[in-house]
Amino acid sequence: MKKDLLSIDDLTTDEILLVLDTAEAMREIGQRPIKKVPTLRGKTIVNLFYEPSTRTRTSFEIAEKRLSADTLNIAVAASSVLKGETLVDTAMNIEAMAPDMIVMRHASSGAPHLLARLCRSVIINAGDGMHEHPTQALLDAFTIREHKKRLDGLKVAIVGDLLHSRVLRSNVHLLNRMGAEVWACAPPTLMPANLAGFGVRPTTSVDEAVDGADVVMMLRIQHERMHGHFIPSTREYYTLFGLTAERVKRAKPDVIIMHPGPMNRGVEIDSDVADGPFSVILEQVANGVAVRMAVLYLLAGQEGEAD
Amino acid sequence: MKKDLLSIDDLTTDEILLVLDTAEAMREIGQRPIKKVPTLRGKTIVNLFYEPSTRTRTSFEIAEKRLSADTLNIAVAASSVLKGETLVDTAMNIEAMAPDMIVMRHASSGAPHLLARLCRSVIINAGDGMHEHPTQALLDAFTIREHKKRLDGLKVAIVGDLLHSRVLRSNVHLLNRMGAEVWACAPPTLMPANLAGFGVRPTTSVDEAVDGADVVMMLRIQHERMHGHFIPSTREYYTLFGLTAERVKRAKPDVIIMHPGPMNRGVEIDSDVADGPFSVILEQVANGVAVRMAVLYLLAGQEGEAD
Amino acid sequence: MKKDLLSIDDLTTDEILLVLDTAEAMREIGQRPIKKVPTLRGKTIVNLFYEPSTRTRTSFEIAEKRLSADTLNIAVAASSVLKGETLVDTAMNIEAMAPDMIVMRHASSGAPHLLARLCRSVIINAGDGMHEHPTQALLDAFTIREHKKRLDGLKVAIVGDLLHSRVLRSNVHLLNRMGAEVWACAPPTLMPANLAGFGVRPTTSVDEAVDGADVVMMLRIQHERMHGHFIPSTREYYTLFGLTAERVKRAKPDVIIMHPGPMNRGVEIDSDVADGPFSVILEQVANGVAVRMAVLYLLAGQEGEAD
Repeated sequence: MKKDLLSIDDLTTDEILLVLDTAEAMREIGQRPIKKVPTLRGKTIVNLFYEPSTRTRTSFEIAEKRLSADTLNIAVAASSVLKGETLVDTAMNIEAMAPDMIVMRHASSGAPHLLARLCRSVIINAGDGMHEHPTQALLDAFTIREHKKRLDGLKVAIVGDLLHSRVLRSNVHLLNRMGAEVWACAPPTLMPANLAGFGVRPTTSVDEAVDGADVVMMLRIQHERMHGHFIPSTREYYTLFGLTAERVKRAKPDVIIMHPGPMNRGVEIDSDVADGPFSVILEQVANGVAVRMAVLYLLAGQEGEAD
Repeated sequence: MKKDLLSIDDLTTDEILLVLDTAEAMREIGQRPIKKVPTLRGKTIVNLFYEPSTRTRTSFEIAEKRLSADTLNIAVAASSVLKGETLVDTAMNIEAMAPDMIVMRHASSGAPHLLARLCRSVIINAGDGMHEHPTQALLDAFTIREHKKRLDGLKVAIVGDLLHSRVLRSNVHLLNRMGAEVWACAPPTLMPANLAGFGVRPTTSVDEAVDGADVVMMLRIQHERMHGHFIPSTREYYTLFGLTAERVKRAKPDVIIMHPGPMNRGVEIDSDVADGPFSVILEQVANGVAVRMAVLYLLAGQEGEAD
Repeated sequence: MKKDLLSIDDLTTDEILLVLDTAEAMREIGQRPIKKVPTLRGKTIVNLFYEPSTRTRTSFEIAEKRLSADTLNIAVAASSVLKGETLVDTAMNIEAMAPDMIVMRHASSGAPHLLARLCRSVIINAGDGMHEHPTQALLDAFTIREHKKRLDGLKVAIVGDLLHSRVLRSNVHLLNRMGAEVWACAPPTLMPANLAGFGVRPTTSVDEAVDGADVVMMLRIQHERMHGHFIPSTREYYTLFGLTAERVKRAKPDVIIMHPGPMNRGVEIDSDVADGPFSVILEQVANGVAVRMAVLYLLAGQEGEAD
């Protein structure tokens, strides 16, 4: 494997399957009374978060602790940025303390790539701007494969704010590679220009996207988009694009409903659907820990030379 | 024992005594050179704090680490609440990651009860709004019992902002059950309506409350009450309700003075008293770690089905 | 050794050498695949930071974890200070929970000394106001000694905001003691009054300070000084006091360039110099972990009575 996990394209198809298979073994550890193995004992992992994210940071931190790594959380907003230090200087300073791995969340696309070029530590991208969020795509694939026993040939509809979504980008790369047929649905203001070029079938009709789908993945509408020029109102967005039980009926009878969270209930998804029989939303969260344990395990010991 | 510790009423009288006896053994661990036992190794405990609280969070975290648990701190203000996620969704997400226990502080009464109904993890209430703070009452009882060798028949005077106090509520439940005689003293604006119905003797006279008391427990006046319509001024509050050395003379000669902290010196308590020979305020803090170790130990392994 | 490390004057010359020698052994641990020794297992170390500091807190936390201590981070701004509790009460509360060591950063000079008088825990000063930052001086000395094989007889030029610098103060104490010749250079507005009395040679000319120097240590200009009456503009400061490759030529051919970080590139130091062949700035960061491990190791088990 490559030293770092910055985007899904860093993984070959075989490596994606290796992550998913390893995650199955890791999930079993999380079901034991003693949820801990000594695999990463004596390894130092820094969770370097330039944006707050309870769920992603917590998921990584639990994964790290189950593998017995030493974890450090650095939330940067309040300290070095305030002192005017550059991202590169902060990164080089952390690197100088010789951590084994750095898990990074940053509001700017490409920030973890910059780190990866400078650091011999393993860098894992935990979400960079509107670019990628590879462990999210891996946990989504893990969850789909568990229910459908395969990824190829499935119709996967991704609905919501496609324009600003790193989850979309990472999922499209992964699902395309594994042979799924990806449909992407959004209002015209939230639709990226070149989706078809990525092998995605774009539509502005939820009904068309959901029709016969094996998987429906709803994306979050962020608060800052809700009252801007992107959507007229949350009420209208819900009417036109919200996933209701009525709309779910157009999908396959064994459809699964996914959401990376956090959800806006009553905006992009109805509570009846979020909490209903087809929802696997909480399974995604549970699988996230197992998939991140797999990624940490497979990348440990890969520290090398910076470029 | 019940799965969760949400309020003192979750414990039988025998269970209260079991917690106090177990805490004595736990305190001994904190006096060793190596203050650590492997009891909760491989258990994950999430400290989920919706309100900042250095002292309660630190006390729980030290207790957890002395028992070798893996601890995660989640301070929610800055992240998910900001993203508009509901308490239930945040809780279900944390639960999906399969922690063994969740220690929760929340500004709303009943928030930990909501979690307990939804989660198979053990929930420990670390203070919910104006409702309960059961580990505080247990550490207070531990401290009183250590000095008085009993709880029944003692006169305990609780003085201060009774209206907004979860410490009052938990202590009244516990002390009543154990046979103590509880007096509660506050200005009329900070006096709850139905105290007598709880077996408490209300009074607006500090002198009457303290007279012949075995234990005087002072409650904090919160800053936001100080300049509102609850009390005319901190100066006047101190004159009428502040605990001075002069007032302490009315109590039993072996009275102990308690305060859950943080103290407002010169408002509800004089520094001469806070730092004086009858004060056990720092013993309360020390005992808090031991009592929380006991609670964590006794509830571990109780995970079950959510309601 | 004394119980606490509050200032460089707490260490004898022999003890300074002992810290530096111990740090060499500790550095070796950080280069192993398993960067962890059980030395401080079962010890509780509280990192009590009243000012945010990513780099110092991270350096101490990594050092603590490499020694297997249990670490707790307390960032005080958001909680107890907000509730109006005094420093002494916060300290006494933490002390009551019986940590073994407290690493403290505070904006007020003397705050750790106050703690040390009250606490039986070992107190380590991680920077107090404009007063001292002893572990910084120790890691600087370690870095200089590694390159120069000695400290005595070296010309060390310290340039920048001398008036507000705890790094200057601790370095002057240490370097003077070890026989180095310390030059200190600043604009008149940032020059302390009595430097010569401390055995330091003051100058307002960078060229004079750097001339023939073995070591040039640049100090940070803090943002809040940049637009006040201390310096006319960052541009003018850079022109008169900034370290450029041109100015470095006046130093010894084997000069080393140091900076405690975070750097203001283009203000007190040019990027060509910061990233150039004479810079040991990132080595300082790496050595910081080793030196802090040495200090923690040497002071552990020194808990005693408060004064």
